[in-house]
Amino acid sequence: MSNFFDKRFLELEAYTPGEQPRDMKYIKLNTNESPYPPSPLVIKAMADRELCERMRLYPDPECLEVRELLAGLLKVDRDEIVLTNGSDEALSFAFMAFCEKGVIFPEISYGFYKVFAELYGLKYRQIPLKDDFTIDPDDYIGTDETVFIANPNAPTGLILSLLQIEKIVASNCDRLVVIDEAYIDFGGESALPLTRKYDNLLVVQTFSKSRSMAGARLGFACGCKDIIRDMNTLRYSTNPYNINSATLALAKATVTDNDYYMDNCKKIMETRKSFISQMKELGFEVLDSKCNFVFAKHKSLGGKEYYEELKRRGVLVRHFNTSKIADYNRITIGTDEMMDVLIEKTREILSKQK
Amino acid sequence: MSNFFDKRFLELEAYTPGEQPRDMKYIKLNTNESPYPPSPLVIKAMADRELCERMRLYPDPECLEVRELLAGLLKVDRDEIVLTNGSDEALSFAFMAFCEKGVIFPEISYGFYKVFAELYGLKYRQIPLKDDFTIDPDDYIGTDETVFIANPNAPTGLILSLLQIEKIVASNCDRLVVIDEAYIDFGGESALPLTRKYDNLLVVQTFSKSRSMAGARLGFACGCKDIIRDMNTLRYSTNPYNINSATLALAKATVTDNDYYMDNCKKIMETRKSFISQMKELGFEVLDSKCNFVFAKHKSLGGKEYYEELKRRGVLVRHFNTSKIADYNRITIGTDEMMDVLIEKTREILSKQK
Repeated sequence: MSNFFDKRFLELEAYTPGEQPRDMKYIKLNTNESPYPPSPLVIKAMADRELCERMRLYPDPECLEVRELLAGLLKVDRDEIVLTNGSDEALSFAFMAFCEKGVIFPEISYGFYKVFAELYGLKYRQIPLKDDFTIDPDDYIGTDETVFIANPNAPTGLILSLLQIEKIVASNCDRLVVIDEAYIDFGGESALPLTRKYDNLLVVQTFSKSRSMAGARLGFACGCKDIIRDMNTLRYSTNPYNINSATLALAKATVTDNDYYMDNCKKIMETRKSFISQMKELGFEVLDSKCNFVFAKHKSLGGKEYYEELKRRGVLVRHFNTSKIADYNRITIGTDEMMDVLIEKTREILSKQK
Repeated sequence: MSNFFDKRFLELEAYTPGEQPRDMKYIKLNTNESPYPPSPLVIKAMADRELCERMRLYPDPECLEVRELLAGLLKVDRDEIVLTNGSDEALSFAFMAFCEKGVIFPEISYGFYKVFAELYGLKYRQIPLKDDFTIDPDDYIGTDETVFIANPNAPTGLILSLLQIEKIVASNCDRLVVIDEAYIDFGGESALPLTRKYDNLLVVQTFSKSRSMAGARLGFACGCKDIIRDMNTLRYSTNPYNINSATLALAKATVTDNDYYMDNCKKIMETRKSFISQMKELGFEVLDSKCNFVFAKHKSLGGKEYYEELKRRGVLVRHFNTSKIADYNRITIGTDEMMDVLIEKTREILSKQK
């Protein structure tokens, strides 16, 4: 730390991204990326020579074309959408903008919520999950604090119903609820339509998981126009050109080719189903995931040991060294072939263990 | 504004990017972009099919390859560099991280400094320029506040010598000086080598101007390892994947093809020289620019009127509606052909005026 660093940040613990080891080639099932490449239309958009020549110019800070296409797909108004550099930036703006009265979020959830709360010096409370790892909607009712809920939740994969979400939102219209739907396309029902009904709801999504664009950094937030205007005030006060020209071009093609991505989601959900049943046969307890990952623990093999044994065999999964979930691993759903390798390695590990 | 917006931001005036009107095709000389496309190597890198397929994966949050190449070019250590989403993000981190004792910057300079100071609730002072629009180094000596100086300064185009910069830095080693070198490649001498000598100096540069990459969003900051570590703490607490995969690939090719860009800078400096002499012949006063733009006022034609008349004729320049500089326009140096059009339109405007 330098002598110049603001004392406010002395205790700040930054977010730890999933590891990207360079020592060998791994089957990467640790960061919830899609195993499927971008659509042919996206690949064509990227190869456009004119796109590269235009790199000399600033991108459109209003992101008008992409917002219009996306608004059509989501059935909202283009002024109810703000595009962000990954959904992390949308969350960052929301924590910065709307949390004067403090903030609450589940104790076990996306690790970045706590980082944002600390970064912006907010009062925050982390609400414990129930023993079965589900979120109790009643815990988020009767409070004034801004609510952040990942739905489905990570790393558990469990989902609240749209009715449960609406109950939280409707319980206090003077309090903002932010629903982080990074994984909504893998079998969940989005709260996006509720943004037309409630002015105190902000829904955040990402192109990183279901749309095979983790490398291009694109997320968005959707809510009433006033809230989106506030988000834009912060965007224009930090980085008005937050979405670059390549990402805008790829996003246009991605939204246009939406069916390709929804088909991939179906494939991933099918793979998930058969993977879960194979894992259960091997003695794993697997939570009921609506995500492109599962959260699983074995009846006898420890979580950390399983992670390490898999890594040694060239398969990366994500282990969280947090007491309440240390027995578990979060395993991304890849292709059938990738999951077959993981199952095979798991059999090997379990047989060695006996 | 929504009911949820933090009261701190009620008065916040966001930055206004240069206009991008859609009503017709303009010769764009208003946002200091390079008129030259990225190098052939960059265009080849962008067309790489594998790059697009890799978009499904997160980018390298450490940006290791680009930092290593850049460190080689700049003759610093890779751990003395942090890559940012445009240099605006580097400036944003610096304002957020290092300004506990307040901040000073020139009254007429890059408009974003004031926005950042307001956004982060900092105490700040804006130091007037001298009557000839130069910065007086002595104004930045004998204070404890963090200093931000654009060198060369915008929109004036005027530069402080390396000796003057060193005098400010050396005057108080317990106070950080940030030198924003967005335009350093157009005839200035960079303070980068001084970062090896002084731990209280941070130099910020961008790929947007001299490297034809405004659309790809890449900037960097260079300073002692402790300061860069602090910048990374904020980066990992806001958006660890701030540089996307396309930008990383283009940056690799850009740094590799450095000579191409330095040749472009020479061309722009030659165009600037002949443009300035033509403008002087037409009755303009032009400040001595070390940038890819000039700051000019006419002896009789008003600044706003000149801007509007040019716009009507399909040429965009940048006019700032600020009393002290309202007579001036900031005109980006494009190709010789672009400047010929501007000169022709200017003759037309001036002849109409008589």
